[in-house]
Amino acid sequence: MADANGNSWEEKDRANVLHGFTDFPSLKENGPVILTHGEGIHVFDVHGKRYLDANSGLWNNVAGFNHKGIIEALTAQAERFPGYHSFFGRIADVTVALSERLIALSPFDSGKVYYTNSGSEANDTMVKMLWMINRRKGQPERRKIITRVNAYHGVTIATSSMTAKPYNGEFGLPLPGFLHADCPHYWRFGLEGETEEAFTERMARNLKDLIEREGPETIAGMFAEPVQGAGGVIPPSKGYFAAIRPVLREYDIPLIADEVICGFGRLGEMWGSDYYDMQPDAIITSKCITAGYYPMGAVILGERLAAEMQAASEAAEEFPHGFTAAGSPLGSAVALKALDVIENDGLIDNVRALTPYFLKRLSRFGDHPHAGEVRGVGFMGAIEIVADKKRKTPFDGKLRISERIANKALEKGLICRPLGASVVLAPPFIITRDELDTMFDLLEETFAAVFAEIG
Amino acid sequence: MADANGNSWEEKDRANVLHGFTDFPSLKENGPVILTHGEGIHVFDVHGKRYLDANSGLWNNVAGFNHKGIIEALTAQAERFPGYHSFFGRIADVTVALSERLIALSPFDSGKVYYTNSGSEANDTMVKMLWMINRRKGQPERRKIITRVNAYHGVTIATSSMTAKPYNGEFGLPLPGFLHADCPHYWRFGLEGETEEAFTERMARNLKDLIEREGPETIAGMFAEPVQGAGGVIPPSKGYFAAIRPVLREYDIPLIADEVICGFGRLGEMWGSDYYDMQPDAIITSKCITAGYYPMGAVILGERLAAEMQAASEAAEEFPHGFTAAGSPLGSAVALKALDVIENDGLIDNVRALTPYFLKRLSRFGDHPHAGEVRGVGFMGAIEIVADKKRKTPFDGKLRISERIANKALEKGLICRPLGASVVLAPPFIITRDELDTMFDLLEETFAAVFAEIG
Repeated sequence: MADANGNSWEEKDRANVLHGFTDFPSLKENGPVILTHGEGIHVFDVHGKRYLDANSGLWNNVAGFNHKGIIEALTAQAERFPGYHSFFGRIADVTVALSERLIALSPFDSGKVYYTNSGSEANDTMVKMLWMINRRKGQPERRKIITRVNAYHGVTIATSSMTAKPYNGEFGLPLPGFLHADCPHYWRFGLEGETEEAFTERMARNLKDLIEREGPETIAGMFAEPVQGAGGVIPPSKGYFAAIRPVLREYDIPLIADEVICGFGRLGEMWGSDYYDMQPDAIITSKCITAGYYPMGAVILGERLAAEMQAASEAAEEFPHGFTAAGSPLGSAVALKALDVIENDGLIDNVRALTPYFLKRLSRFGDHPHAGEVRGVGFMGAIEIVADKKRKTPFDGKLRISERIANKALEKGLICRPLGASVVLAPPFIITRDELDTMFDLLEETFAAVFAEIG
Repeated sequence: MADANGNSWEEKDRANVLHGFTDFPSLKENGPVILTHGEGIHVFDVHGKRYLDANSGLWNNVAGFNHKGIIEALTAQAERFPGYHSFFGRIADVTVALSERLIALSPFDSGKVYYTNSGSEANDTMVKMLWMINRRKGQPERRKIITRVNAYHGVTIATSSMTAKPYNGEFGLPLPGFLHADCPHYWRFGLEGETEEAFTERMARNLKDLIEREGPETIAGMFAEPVQGAGGVIPPSKGYFAAIRPVLREYDIPLIADEVICGFGRLGEMWGSDYYDMQPDAIITSKCITAGYYPMGAVILGERLAAEMQAASEAAEEFPHGFTAAGSPLGSAVALKALDVIENDGLIDNVRALTPYFLKRLSRFGDHPHAGEVRGVGFMGAIEIVADKKRKTPFDGKLRISERIANKALEKGLICRPLGASVVLAPPFIITRDELDTMFDLLEETFAAVFAEIG
């Protein structure tokens, strides 16, 4: 695969591209994988090799990589009206239609939608909205944002500060005022002899202590993913949201559900908020909103925050905020179709129908001597690798165990994702039972090969 | 225009949409403008009304609203491979091709490209890159970012902090460590009796003083638009970049050119950096990169910063940063085509050819008793409205003079943009001489009508 100058795709990549969220030792050893196209749940590289993508791209390509209906909707709108902004009170008709649809789909009786190009931008925007509302309400000191250890909310400077992962130390983040509460991961953080119920109570108590210590009048909001996704697929401990909700209500702190991963069907329901009865005040979405066919994020404000933002904007005569390409007609048409496909063409039904089988095959890894915890909900699963199962100790970092598994899987034509010490699976919503079998068979072979190598 | 329930588009909009960068009094008075499609330089609303968009959407729809070639490239790639991420060393072939093309187009002999979904994300990313490089070089205190009063670099929390406009006070921004140097607008900020040369010297001296006062060892970089765009189309004073470049070099402070507006032809050259001989260390692009047909931003690192980012990422084993939809195959194919259209299908040539006529017709506003300054370069122009021409004093804010002009123009079928006290024009690159005449005729009629009203 070389061009007229004899340069391969891989050489062009090395010369011109900086890769993000990429393991540089693996990149150095194996080179990049340059992709040409996809079919169903598979993608193909420039050498014709086929990969089953067990991660739906990045949780988002849930309708597969060549969904005819979505492509048709996209091309039809491209011919009608591809690009326009939504500033100055101007907006495309399809964007208004999408807004109506999103409010109808949302857990809110009424509300308002605000568009961005990504989940990062949507979370970042939500923080600005809270700050503006609070200043206009005469509470300018109410600025601190609570997220939780292992949370992932994006990569802008502010949302990196909300993303409570150690790697953000590379940038000298988090910024001051971004507080990280406990991660409700019972298996990892439960104390010796502590029941799950007691653990959950401790989570809520610690949150209350954090708020009291910081001063409730300084807290603008708490953001939480229903299931922590990029933290390693961490469902909350039993009763977690029921326990923290009253604490937040007591101090009048809004709860923002980051539904970027869970939203639109990943758990077999439209919202992770519904699955866990989170009762959020606003919802952040992205990813599946276009099934990965267009960059889009949206803040969906529930009734109260919508009214407060409207009031603040009227008082200021403007909400001085906006992204050029956000709320574009092309993205809106794609989203309208993607949501229709997910809701009405059997995708969410398939997730619901196959979740028991997905979780059953996943649970087979539980017998593996190095599977510390196998956890999952809906079409999200993780196997956390440990050196010592009883003591839950990780392998030596130098072994790069989860990267090693992902690299071996790639050789075998399976894309899975290393996340910390875990290997994560999040298949497309269109996957069949047979394809689930192939996916798990390949992963089992991969585990066997890798653990045979390291002895 | 009502649906089955009798709700008009306008009512649906009011119920479900929060409008950003929108004058709320105007929205309340006139309602939103709901658009259905575009043809060439015009867009149409749901009532069939046609508008000449003198702002190319938001500086970006430079090839018009229904460019056949770009739409064909978009639909062809949508059928081949629409959506994939560029994490984990995986990337689409067209994204690699685009990267090679961008480096070839750039002012750099070699470099690296990093994709985002917007200019906001690209500037935000660039700041993170500088912070990571500096930490890995053992200079973690080198974090402060210099921009300039009236700069516009985006709307994330960090890039709002770089955007030195008063409205960011609504959010309690800027954050600490974001410094705002002088705006090099001679007409507005020149002192009584000061020559433009002396003004430029003062700009450079003040920048040096700012750096010395803050401590050069605390400054990570300076970001500058070649021409300040959303600040109100403010070209730099004569010799400005030649004067500040040595100051930045003296303290080893990288200069980042924010080419989101100027890049890809707005000034009749590929880069504003070239037009002003800025010699930047990196370039931020967005907008015209896809001619407004897809959300995309890109950081283009010059040779030195590319090497430093590569070294930092290798040392950390990862650049822990990335946006899900960034560097997607669909966006890359659109960008490849848009850049080809701009460069090779006569668009940039048309800008160059018609710039003298554009500026000549613009300059006719100079005779207007309330045009304080008429300024422009390439296909960017602004008329700054004043109450008193000699004293350069603005009208009473309550008159909302530039909003009033934009609203009256809209009535007449012309979209122009109020920016502070200025009215801004930035026509599509495909505009003809006749269409320029229509645009200016409509604006002259608008001025006549508005100033007749206010007496």
